[in-house]
Amino acid sequence: MDIGFIGLGEMGGAIVANLLKAGHRVRVWNRTAERARPLADAGAEVVATPADAFAGDAVFSMLADDAALREVVDASLLEHVPRGIVHVNMATISVALAEQLAREHAERGLHYVAAPVLGRPDVAKAAKLTIVAGGPAEALDRVQPLFDAIGQKTWRIGSLPQQANVMKLAANFMLASAVETLGEAAALLSGHGVAMRDFLDVVTGGPFPGPVYQGYGTMIAEQRYEPAMFKARLGLKDVRLALAAADAVSTPLPVASAVRDSLLEAVAHGDGELDFAVLGKVALRRAGR
Amino acid sequence: MDIGFIGLGEMGGAIVANLLKAGHRVRVWNRTAERARPLADAGAEVVATPADAFAGDAVFSMLADDAALREVVDASLLEHVPRGIVHVNMATISVALAEQLAREHAERGLHYVAAPVLGRPDVAKAAKLTIVAGGPAEALDRVQPLFDAIGQKTWRIGSLPQQANVMKLAANFMLASAVETLGEAAALLSGHGVAMRDFLDVVTGGPFPGPVYQGYGTMIAEQRYEPAMFKARLGLKDVRLALAAADAVSTPLPVASAVRDSLLEAVAHGDGELDFAVLGKVALRRAGR
Amino acid sequence: MDIGFIGLGEMGGAIVANLLKAGHRVRVWNRTAERARPLADAGAEVVATPADAFAGDAVFSMLADDAALREVVDASLLEHVPRGIVHVNMATISVALAEQLAREHAERGLHYVAAPVLGRPDVAKAAKLTIVAGGPAEALDRVQPLFDAIGQKTWRIGSLPQQANVMKLAANFMLASAVETLGEAAALLSGHGVAMRDFLDVVTGGPFPGPVYQGYGTMIAEQRYEPAMFKARLGLKDVRLALAAADAVSTPLPVASAVRDSLLEAVAHGDGELDFAVLGKVALRRAGR
Amino acid sequence: MDIGFIGLGEMGGAIVANLLKAGHRVRVWNRTAERARPLADAGAEVVATPADAFAGDAVFSMLADDAALREVVDASLLEHVPRGIVHVNMATISVALAEQLAREHAERGLHYVAAPVLGRPDVAKAAKLTIVAGGPAEALDRVQPLFDAIGQKTWRIGSLPQQANVMKLAANFMLASAVETLGEAAALLSGHGVAMRDFLDVVTGGPFPGPVYQGYGTMIAEQRYEPAMFKARLGLKDVRLALAAADAVSTPLPVASAVRDSLLEAVAHGDGELDFAVLGKVALRRAGR
Repeated sequence: MDIGFIGLGEMGGAIVANLLKAGHRVRVWNRTAERARPLADAGAEVVATPADAFAGDAVFSMLADDAALREVVDASLLEHVPRGIVHVNMATISVALAEQLAREHAERGLHYVAAPVLGRPDVAKAAKLTIVAGGPAEALDRVQPLFDAIGQKTWRIGSLPQQANVMKLAANFMLASAVETLGEAAALLSGHGVAMRDFLDVVTGGPFPGPVYQGYGTMIAEQRYEPAMFKARLGLKDVRLALAAADAVSTPLPVASAVRDSLLEAVAHGDGELDFAVLGKVALRRAGR
Repeated sequence: MDIGFIGLGEMGGAIVANLLKAGHRVRVWNRTAERARPLADAGAEVVATPADAFAGDAVFSMLADDAALREVVDASLLEHVPRGIVHVNMATISVALAEQLAREHAERGLHYVAAPVLGRPDVAKAAKLTIVAGGPAEALDRVQPLFDAIGQKTWRIGSLPQQANVMKLAANFMLASAVETLGEAAALLSGHGVAMRDFLDVVTGGPFPGPVYQGYGTMIAEQRYEPAMFKARLGLKDVRLALAAADAVSTPLPVASAVRDSLLEAVAHGDGELDFAVLGKVALRRAGR
Repeated sequence: MDIGFIGLGEMGGAIVANLLKAGHRVRVWNRTAERARPLADAGAEVVATPADAFAGDAVFSMLADDAALREVVDASLLEHVPRGIVHVNMATISVALAEQLAREHAERGLHYVAAPVLGRPDVAKAAKLTIVAGGPAEALDRVQPLFDAIGQKTWRIGSLPQQANVMKLAANFMLASAVETLGEAAALLSGHGVAMRDFLDVVTGGPFPGPVYQGYGTMIAEQRYEPAMFKARLGLKDVRLALAAADAVSTPLPVASAVRDSLLEAVAHGDGELDFAVLGKVALRRAGR
Repeated sequence: MDIGFIGLGEMGGAIVANLLKAGHRVRVWNRTAERARPLADAGAEVVATPADAFAGDAVFSMLADDAALREVVDASLLEHVPRGIVHVNMATISVALAEQLAREHAERGLHYVAAPVLGRPDVAKAAKLTIVAGGPAEALDRVQPLFDAIGQKTWRIGSLPQQANVMKLAANFMLASAVETLGEAAALLSGHGVAMRDFLDVVTGGPFPGPVYQGYGTMIAEQRYEPAMFKARLGLKDVRLALAAADAVSTPLPVASAVRDSLLEAVAHGDGELDFAVLGKVALRRAGR
């Protein structure tokens, strides 16, 4: 297929590489052009403007947040996009913006699909992402071959794009809660002279297996918060979005509020660029340790 | 070995059966004597008083809570226990009581060991419990053969019995947080018309595998809170104990406080005997659904 | 002076009446024109567009929220406003919008002043408002005579307009916390059969005098949440703004988060149009009463 | 009347002085006898044991907490107290202990009355305490002349002594919430460069008059937490008791939980002996300031 791709961060770059490998033609655009170079070597066509990328059968966007997306995909860009194209937005954006984008695209005869992914860059490189897709079935059908080229599984969540965003935010809320809880548990244990490492071995060997408890738990046990797999600052962004999505349907999320406060405290202490696991440091500081 | 066992609930009964199978002599006592009968058929000696059980090499106790334990194991009982015996307390009790019991036993030349377990009755029946043991190494060494007869793995947490209690409470706090978070996530998702079942499939197939998310998540998705695997009322008891253990070392646990409030609300609405998963009902009620 | 006034709600109407009484010339505009009629009888000039009002020495705006303000005071309006005019915004808006408006005005040679007020419509009618003003001293000096005509006291908070907004939001946060706390206390007392009315008499006669505890406390004691002096829905708006202002400076406000959850629950149960005191109903419901 | 008084702290001493002034005969006892000396000079009879004080028409107790009270007023003491005496307990104790004491007294033909007071030592000296009394009307009638000698107003809360304790705890919860809220507001304001002193002037001059906001607010504004009027450690004790009283009737108090966490953090940082206003320091620390 003939596609565009906007936003070549670590995730975006890995996804484009897999799309090229699968034989698709990909026009790529990035704010800072150097990031596009390695992909050009791999066969991508580097274009000069987002509008150049917004052509062909489909265009993917993978930008940092609402503001970054809105700056690129604004009304004047959408005005000139050829009808019928499917815009696949993979970024974790707010539910409100997702609703608005869906409306704006529909008004212009464009298709808007939300497809946030679960998985880190290494998973993206291996083409094993889990894709959480929301949007009209026909539009999803058209881009399914592209999803198949970059992920191992696509979940279709609902016919409204924002439903995929809600699911991604709920998943990240679960992650945030798990890390906060590990941090609080570590503070409790240290107060009684129990080794966090032992605790982790017990729980990950039993009721709480899996990469989240293993990975973040180890960083907390070692009080080592670098290198950051998932930055606290970005975790805070997602918790804010989850709270906003819940607010929009009048739903209290007390645990999300608690995590938000801890992340704010981390950022206030200059630790926003450290890993999400820095919640363990926050819990220890509160306990005077 | 020659041992006593006090408290023949579902867990206690399963454990005694395995001790008998392993060839140990077991004197059993329970407040309501009928519960002892099937064990008598399996070879246990039913005794008339707790003091009768408190003899031989070691005695296990597995009672509901601090009050139940204190009623049976009081000063007058300990006064008459032969020196040198190892008392293995498997119940989830408060850190404060564990400390006090350790002191009282030591003063009388008795050994006190805390050995709370992870695992439900079916795991106990299969002799596959995970045992979290705290106490002096010599005392633990003496009862290790008994642990081997009932569990698949013994973790030695520290030389102070209460450290094992802290670890068990921290594990149950993690459970409580996970269930509360699932409940809040379910309320968020339902507000946007996303199926909790789909969400569960995505997260348990990815970052959150394991029995906790699978089991409680399914009950929450189905809004079915019976039969109770782990009653909300007992969950509340454990969260209270975790908060008290944290308070004793001046450690805030904001997520535990949030879960406590939700469990109190469940109990206030008459749902204390339902499963812990009833936290999903609380989250939905708050959202007016 | 020659002034404009945009937004003739209950507060705006009372303020305009006092400005007229003090001898100022006032051009008024409101989205629904009928609200302007009584003021026309009192001497105001009713104009057809916001731009007509934005002329003379100064213009006041008193609109419901960020969105309402932004819809009226947009870039195209500001483009045509004569240089030198002082825009006095009395609405409780977000800190972020206040910062942006200050910038936009400065770029066009206009003066922007924030002047949120403390006091209900009856206080406004009596020209006894407390005015919390932020902005450059020269601009404040120019509109001080207008403040004197409508309030009993003007506090100058700082040279940045948004500082006045932060102070107003902090004051409303204190109000929100006080009402939530009264509600929780009422639930605690009722659980033990103690009359909330007695409690109120004790505390308002002692450590907690003043209209807030007296007024909201009485509504909670009587479980009567109408007529609404301050609607729960609007209270929620202000708590959200306080949380956002705190978030912008990485400051956790755990009590504000707790109140927000309670207000969301009130709205979720269809009680958003009731008085803020409905937080008492939320606390009682959680306690199953 | 012929009365005993147990516990001669600052409050107890001031109260005894007023009882003597009013012409009553007072036998006093204190753990550390020196504290009794000045009262002996004023006419009190210093006795050697609590049992000596527990005689005559009535006995007051004013001890630090549950443990201190239980150590003095135990079963063996009550066994020998002459029937018919009224025991007036002025300390802020747990609802659970108040219930138990009421039961134990009744079983022995003794009267138990709870009479916690509102007011600091200077108020006690001026005989202007507010007394919150709970217990059977006949018992309260008998000691009313004594209340009249030490306070300006007695509120009869209910026929169950613990109801007076609940009311006192609810009042202290309100205090705790007000101080925490002031602290959070101070952190929000400082983040935006607004002076806490200005804020205090605005709110205490308007919606929040009274000694609590004035007194604690000033300490927070000055970041001065000594001398302690009300120690953080004792504030924490009372918040714990309020949470326990609420738990007993399945009532969530989310704001109390938030304050508890902040107080724990203060104690963890070695600030438990500072004034309650140290909650402002906690809020600032979380915000990295």
